Amino acid sequence: MKRIAVDMDGVLADVYSQFIAMHAAEFGIEIPRDQAIGRPEAEVFINERKYVNAPGFFRNAPVMEHSQRILQQLHQQYEVFIVSAAMEFPNSLSEKLSWLGEHFSFLNWKQFVFCGSKAIIKADIMIDDYFKNLDHFSGETTLLFTQPHNQLAVTGRHTRIQTWLDIEALLLK
Amino acid sequence: MKRIAVDMDGVLADVYSQFIAMHAAEFGIEIPRDQAIGRPEAEVFINERKYVNAPGFFRNAPVMEHSQRILQQLHQQYEVFIVSAAMEFPNSLSEKLSWLGEHFSFLNWKQFVFCGSKAIIKADIMIDDYFKNLDHFSGETTLLFTQPHNQLAVTGRHTRIQTWLDIEALLLK
Repeated sequence: MKRIAVDMDGVLADVYSQFIAMHAAEFGIEIPRDQAIGRPEAEVFINERKYVNAPGFFRNAPVMEHSQRILQQLHQQYEVFIVSAAMEFPNSLSEKLSWLGEHFSFLNWKQFVFCGSKAIIKADIMIDDYFKNLDHFSGETTLLFTQPHNQLAVTGRHTRIQTWLDIEALLLK
Repeated sequence: MKRIAVDMDGVLADVYSQFIAMHAAEFGIEIPRDQAIGRPEAEVFINERKYVNAPGFFRNAPVMEHSQRILQQLHQQYEVFIVSAAMEFPNSLSEKLSWLGEHFSFLNWKQFVFCGSKAIIKADIMIDDYFKNLDHFSGETTLLFTQPHNQLAVTGRHTRIQTWLDIEALLLK
């Protein structure tokens, strides 16, 4: 059974919606998603650091469309691990655990990994929205999940996917 | 540079001292360490589950003798990761992070991994006190750190170490 390492932020959790909502709440301006294309999150949302450290940022993040149904199917055919670079935000640890328990209750805590660097992860397939994680992955398949910050980048050896429906088409046959 | 995955509980953190202290506080009886030899922790300390879920259990655990000095030296010669099966105890996540920050401040959050199963860990050397973690490790070297619960077990392919001084002798030449 092949092992998949699935990222949280930007893959399962829609963090952009959180950034947009918190920026709007602070400045009264709703930044359109298009304005974030090709730019680092911290450049688009000038108080990004404040938002990710705010209580509730991770706990209340919306779930990415189709991810629940498709991950549940992957869970039948693959060894699924949720791998999140959560150590940078100490407050996020318990929020992320609660969030997974609420939205992905078919998974077991044994399938969760909160780390700093993902270089230590051993799997066959990695789904992530950041090159820094995919580039050092030793497994065979690297899927770059499209998010505004990576939208203009050349994917190189990674396969770009636009939505969870692409993952369904690629991994569930 | 070889990568080492170092366990926390029973390797860096002296959890037996916590069990003994909390059992003594509850029942007024100090169980000698010898009585725990060859027996699961949950059998020796009948309220073990309650203790590990109590606030402060992980945060206030004593540091294993010599571990700070020797891990700091390993950190110069190896790629060190602290890998803890912390997901079983949701309250432990932030406590463990604070504990590492206090006692092993020379390490960076990028070197911490909190997981459920350690099967996903890719490293060359694993130091752990549980067979369930060492048995599924794909790296070349598995060091079984002696703790009362594993003290009578036949080590098989793993190398038994008694204290951090054994790790110093084995890995720091």
